[in-house]
Amino acid sequence: MHLNPRLVAPIMKHRIEVCKRIPGPKSKSMLARFRELNGGWGVPLPFVQTVEGDGCYFKDVDGNTLMDFASQIASNPLGYNHPDMKETVKQYTHTAPVKIAGQDFIAREHLDLLEELIKITPSHLNSAFLINSGAEAVENAIKICMRSKPGSTYGVSFEEAFHGRTLGALSLTNTKRVHKKGFWAFNTKRLPFDSTAPQELEDMLRREGGDDSCAFVIVEPVQGEGGYRPAPKKMLQGIRRACDAHNIPFICDEIQSGIGRTGEWWAFQHYGITPDAMTAGKGLQIGATIANRKLFPAESGAISSTWGGGALIDMALAVTTIKAIKKHKLLSHNKRMGNYMKKQLLELQFRHQRVSGARGLGLMLAFDLPTKEERDAFLLACLQKGLVLLGCGQRGVRLIPPYVVEKEQADEAMQVMRQSLAKQEKLGPEIKKYEKCGDHPI
Amino acid sequence: MHLNPRLVAPIMKHRIEVCKRIPGPKSKSMLARFRELNGGWGVPLPFVQTVEGDGCYFKDVDGNTLMDFASQIASNPLGYNHPDMKETVKQYTHTAPVKIAGQDFIAREHLDLLEELIKITPSHLNSAFLINSGAEAVENAIKICMRSKPGSTYGVSFEEAFHGRTLGALSLTNTKRVHKKGFWAFNTKRLPFDSTAPQELEDMLRREGGDDSCAFVIVEPVQGEGGYRPAPKKMLQGIRRACDAHNIPFICDEIQSGIGRTGEWWAFQHYGITPDAMTAGKGLQIGATIANRKLFPAESGAISSTWGGGALIDMALAVTTIKAIKKHKLLSHNKRMGNYMKKQLLELQFRHQRVSGARGLGLMLAFDLPTKEERDAFLLACLQKGLVLLGCGQRGVRLIPPYVVEKEQADEAMQVMRQSLAKQEKLGPEIKKYEKCGDHPI
Repeated sequence: MHLNPRLVAPIMKHRIEVCKRIPGPKSKSMLARFRELNGGWGVPLPFVQTVEGDGCYFKDVDGNTLMDFASQIASNPLGYNHPDMKETVKQYTHTAPVKIAGQDFIAREHLDLLEELIKITPSHLNSAFLINSGAEAVENAIKICMRSKPGSTYGVSFEEAFHGRTLGALSLTNTKRVHKKGFWAFNTKRLPFDSTAPQELEDMLRREGGDDSCAFVIVEPVQGEGGYRPAPKKMLQGIRRACDAHNIPFICDEIQSGIGRTGEWWAFQHYGITPDAMTAGKGLQIGATIANRKLFPAESGAISSTWGGGALIDMALAVTTIKAIKKHKLLSHNKRMGNYMKKQLLELQFRHQRVSGARGLGLMLAFDLPTKEERDAFLLACLQKGLVLLGCGQRGVRLIPPYVVEKEQADEAMQVMRQSLAKQEKLGPEIKKYEKCGDHPI
Repeated sequence: MHLNPRLVAPIMKHRIEVCKRIPGPKSKSMLARFRELNGGWGVPLPFVQTVEGDGCYFKDVDGNTLMDFASQIASNPLGYNHPDMKETVKQYTHTAPVKIAGQDFIAREHLDLLEELIKITPSHLNSAFLINSGAEAVENAIKICMRSKPGSTYGVSFEEAFHGRTLGALSLTNTKRVHKKGFWAFNTKRLPFDSTAPQELEDMLRREGGDDSCAFVIVEPVQGEGGYRPAPKKMLQGIRRACDAHNIPFICDEIQSGIGRTGEWWAFQHYGITPDAMTAGKGLQIGATIANRKLFPAESGAISSTWGGGALIDMALAVTTIKAIKKHKLLSHNKRMGNYMKKQLLELQFRHQRVSGARGLGLMLAFDLPTKEERDAFLLACLQKGLVLLGCGQRGVRLIPPYVVEKEQADEAMQVMRQSLAKQEKLGPEIKKYEKCGDHPI
């Protein structure tokens, strides 16, 4: 293992290298077939990926080396082929099945992960339920709150919230219309994602006839899909107080912002508050609903799942992720690198009139471009130069590098972004045409 | 690889061997701690499992060798450490992460599994969406049906149905009260699981004001959790006809009954019908919603999931499972072994007055005992002799051996079951006391 001086990660031997125009010929033909077969077809990134690579870099099937500043939608905190992760996977070489019925058949990995999770959550959040996805973590968080408030009829989420796609979680999601169109929804109410929210909640409770009908309030301390917006301090603290005063369980959804991404284990720690229940997913490598023991139903069988707590490799990798973050001091690294990159974004904003709203906490960063079209064209331009970024909100660009990112990679990414912006500025009204050139807009 | 003459699986070198009373001391202390930390605590099996073992056998942490006739709740079709599965896992030894954001970052494994799935489904079911669990497969099946019927207000499932625990799927689940108590539910209607169902559906549609308000009918061709009851032929064929006549999408939930368990790829194939959409999970190693391309929403982003289609090892193991079933001719093996075991169950029923309702299709078998208490005591008695079985329905016992089961293992299991029944008959009114002896009733 060759660790760099700061012990964060092995020295990355790769650099961006686009040898075949993206999408390359192999990717192109595979994606064409994929489009025929995949019922979930959105608009995937225009390459077929391999997991060859290291740190921030991976190769596609055409031999291009790309830089992933999307971290598999925040799901790949340690980057590609981190030695600690590889070491863990290696232990399962001679094991099948790798996924068991984890609430009936208990495995050591399940207990190990529960122990590790409890160590990094506030002390009253002392019990966890492991589950298959972030959406299922939200489903279970809201289920246990409903059960604790019999007779409740609605839940509360925020404007531009994203909590997942299963119908319970989707009822609380308020980002894009396409996510919800034509699907049934439970009764939910929305608060503005700003400092007026606590007063709005008070008004809502009065209007809706008291505290008993509200099952929970759920919030992302830093909104993900909705635009990488950190909540105002006054908002989160006020909501916490209002929930206490009215006996309403308060859930923090940490699926995208948790597990060290923002420089703290959980984003709510920036706000000096703690929730009654929380969710984790993505970076954790598995879904989890975490709460006080007493908030979970006492009755046997009230919540369960065949594979929940049974994905042996995923659970082992979750333990490894937590331990690696501690061992390599990645929380402080993420703060430091987040500050470095935010400074770069502010400089970009200073130099380019089209860039605005540079923001973020730790390695959960974003900025805006003037329109959705320009944003999409920018993402595509970066991609064609080998840098993978994602959009968020209406016209935001999110930067979510793996935690192993160093100044060298941040600089390389900024270089690509500057070039893409310059090209866009030169192109002007040609942007729309440019946007279409890849045949695969992001 | 040492394959036995019938090429089904390697010769199993293990036999049941209970050297430490179950639960053994290591299991006992781990389960005690687990109970403190797991929010999802139901009543797990009273041992901590390892995946050491082969075929139908696995070891627990106390060194006992148990026989798994529950197949990890039908999730482990090829048994423990099948050479084909191990070979596949080995290919991922040097890979991290093993789970990517599969609807944005496309991997070869995703495309491979879609190709394999489409080969084993009726030809009009030509498109699939891979997802994290069976519950999520149901969520997506009902979502695409809703979307295809704008303005629909309810869905239809059956008495004793089990379709999962997320709130959408849970709304359609009708087994135990504890699963739903205190949770919100969508508007659903129930049909009896018998041959009167088609007429009831017709009546329901008339009563509810026409065909447009019904989004879908969903059914398990062989009910799982609800009691391992195969649907009557008249019922499934009649429901299919009624759905056709009234333009209602018909979903078959094959999460427990699919992937060859019943001796056909899908249980509905025993009935000479095909659904408009279907779900798979458990034995497949991953969740899948399968339908005609046209039933999936055309609009980009309508259904998605971060990890859906991104679990590399799970997808590779799903491909291996399908190929192994073909290569080792496990469909006909499951039919043959299912007939053999059913004959044994009928003999058991003939000899023991307390046994009734011997039933099943392929390796999805069950029988009933007179009461829930006797059933639970029987399961525990078998377990303490090293045979893992599961309950189903009110007082049913399910037998779901891995597909690699041979006569030798079936005989060994029957031997344990006969001994347990004999002991119970001798114990008589002492059963209740006996049931408690493990401190961990199943």
